[in-house]
Amino acid sequence: MAISISSDKTYLTVSLGSGDRRFHGIWLRDHAQDPATVSPHNGQRLITLLDQPESIHIASATPIDGNILAVRFEEIDQVFQFPFHWLEQHCYDRSDDGEAHQAGWINQEFVLWDSHLIDAVPNGSFTEVNSNRLALGKWLAAVHRFGFALMTGLPENPDSLLDVTALFGYVRETNYGKCFDVRSEVDPVNLAYTGLGLQAHTDNPYRDPAPTMQILSCIENTASGGESIVVDGFHAAKILQQENPEHFDLLSGFCARFRYAGSRDVNLVSKRPMIELGVDGELVAVRFNNRSSAPLVDIPFEMMHHYYRAYRHFSEIIGRNDNQLTFRLEPNQLFIVENTRVMYSRAAFSFAGNRWLRGCYPDRDGMRSTLSVIAKEHPEARLTDSEI
Amino acid sequence: MAISISSDKTYLTVSLGSGDRRFHGIWLRDHAQDPATVSPHNGQRLITLLDQPESIHIASATPIDGNILAVRFEEIDQVFQFPFHWLEQHCYDRSDDGEAHQAGWINQEFVLWDSHLIDAVPNGSFTEVNSNRLALGKWLAAVHRFGFALMTGLPENPDSLLDVTALFGYVRETNYGKCFDVRSEVDPVNLAYTGLGLQAHTDNPYRDPAPTMQILSCIENTASGGESIVVDGFHAAKILQQENPEHFDLLSGFCARFRYAGSRDVNLVSKRPMIELGVDGELVAVRFNNRSSAPLVDIPFEMMHHYYRAYRHFSEIIGRNDNQLTFRLEPNQLFIVENTRVMYSRAAFSFAGNRWLRGCYPDRDGMRSTLSVIAKEHPEARLTDSEI
Repeated sequence: MAISISSDKTYLTVSLGSGDRRFHGIWLRDHAQDPATVSPHNGQRLITLLDQPESIHIASATPIDGNILAVRFEEIDQVFQFPFHWLEQHCYDRSDDGEAHQAGWINQEFVLWDSHLIDAVPNGSFTEVNSNRLALGKWLAAVHRFGFALMTGLPENPDSLLDVTALFGYVRETNYGKCFDVRSEVDPVNLAYTGLGLQAHTDNPYRDPAPTMQILSCIENTASGGESIVVDGFHAAKILQQENPEHFDLLSGFCARFRYAGSRDVNLVSKRPMIELGVDGELVAVRFNNRSSAPLVDIPFEMMHHYYRAYRHFSEIIGRNDNQLTFRLEPNQLFIVENTRVMYSRAAFSFAGNRWLRGCYPDRDGMRSTLSVIAKEHPEARLTDSEI
Repeated sequence: MAISISSDKTYLTVSLGSGDRRFHGIWLRDHAQDPATVSPHNGQRLITLLDQPESIHIASATPIDGNILAVRFEEIDQVFQFPFHWLEQHCYDRSDDGEAHQAGWINQEFVLWDSHLIDAVPNGSFTEVNSNRLALGKWLAAVHRFGFALMTGLPENPDSLLDVTALFGYVRETNYGKCFDVRSEVDPVNLAYTGLGLQAHTDNPYRDPAPTMQILSCIENTASGGESIVVDGFHAAKILQQENPEHFDLLSGFCARFRYAGSRDVNLVSKRPMIELGVDGELVAVRFNNRSSAPLVDIPFEMMHHYYRAYRHFSEIIGRNDNQLTFRLEPNQLFIVENTRVMYSRAAFSFAGNRWLRGCYPDRDGMRSTLSVIAKEHPEARLTDSEI
């Protein structure tokens, strides 16, 4: 185990499985896991950066039993221990892999999909998911990877979507209520409550933060038409970037605006790009909704024409049959989407017969937390590619 | 009223109060407000971009009665009307004002503050705010402008914070419950539930999206110590930028990581910068919390030392007495903060006597929506500087 300390004592170099890796003394001190630094009870950090010396020099660094690195700093009379596997896991000294730092890179855990997913739609049985923690984990893993999954065999209860949400997290209540009903109304406050077809869209982009997930469950469906259609917005964004990188840059580089003021007591507005990247270039969200699009005023005059070309291009990609997964939701079934990724659309339906869906907006953080806890108990809960 | 059409007919120029402004034909068509484009019932757009011609040429543009611009397009047999004041309001053809496009620019509606706000703490009386819509509007306007306000005279009910939230919006439920109690526990799942002092922080940065607001109400406070301290994180970020622009760029240009796994069934993680800018450079959020800081692995080796200097600098600014507004929360009082902007801290308190706060996380979108609706009814609900 080769370990060396830099001549200015500010960092050390250690040979790990992946190669020689450097770690700063200041980073090591800040990330120490001893019980005076991190609470053994709840894992929270007990000290602040200001509790640590401003300047840190590494006095010694020696391996213990081949699996732990013991570090001493000149400024602190204490030995700090770092397991080598922990260092490997949290290494920040790496040659950038190009893909990860390209604008629009996508988390490797996500599987992009198109209409062909119809042959292997992620699906769970309520009875199983409700009674078996591993089955729940596998269903949540599918939701995480595809941003979309079905569930069948729901109990005969219009609020069964709340039972499903309770398995993994919490519903975000909004002006539409904790749940909302999607069926045709005579004088609708929202176009969703008509028999009109809807263009594929993400819900409530006029909210900031937008809902991170949506569940739509079917209570009744005897109308003809009204098929559900889902589109992987990350896949659509990737196609846009491949077909025209400038179009991708326009939709990710300027803010759109969204608004909803359909009821007398509501005026929701937001300003966010249609394609949102994190500060490290990661694709983190799409927002797309013609119904609630507000005047675009954040694109300079010189770019507006190009922006509209990009917007049209993206609309056209989203509308391609190849990208649309179509299915008919039957009573006692639901589907869930990550609303920051997957767009939802509905074919027009007739007023002969009834179509009644009930929806809610669960928060994704709870879902990912539950998935992560189950995956620790049951590593097989994380779907591998061969299982898709 | 001078109106001219460009030679290629793709845009027109109109003299508005603020000067000559250009509008593209394609933008005008897309933003038309006629009842076939926008539903008169709910304001939602009835058509998509793909329902409109790809290429639009302006055939004519003439004023009506001096207050409306009537526009015809070659491709569409219809006259579209745009009030001049609407065009002025939604103009996107402007010489960039430098301030608005500087990284870290701040919404002009926000008032930055420091410890001197103690002489004019935004405050509302529950009786008044609960019974008078204008008073509610003024209180919400203060919350919006300062990211912080007090409320006094709450009813003797441990859940009165929910009554307050119901006046403007909805609570976001989390693993901590719809409400959570902050008082000392023997084996706490969170350091907040101890008598320790806490560094100023935003709550739950390990959640994505983080809670946008927090209310903390006081049910009992006979302990000595435990004063509440709030810090305007936007003001702190601005000071950081003024004192060292490179430090500001480091904290806004690289992702930090946060994590909470204090209970057996929870593992919440996030990756976001401590200072978050929108795609147009607007300062939109700060995240700062030593307790839930997770290993920093997204800063390249070469930048880590600089990043730590910036992180220390920001910590030091947040801790300056000048920036901390200190007050003692008494029973039947609460305070509310925008959790993406204002940090909260608490002095250590003794175990002699009791300190019992109850908190919840309302969503800001509902708050801003309610404020905006009230401000339309009562324009005076929007505080002016002279009223602060």
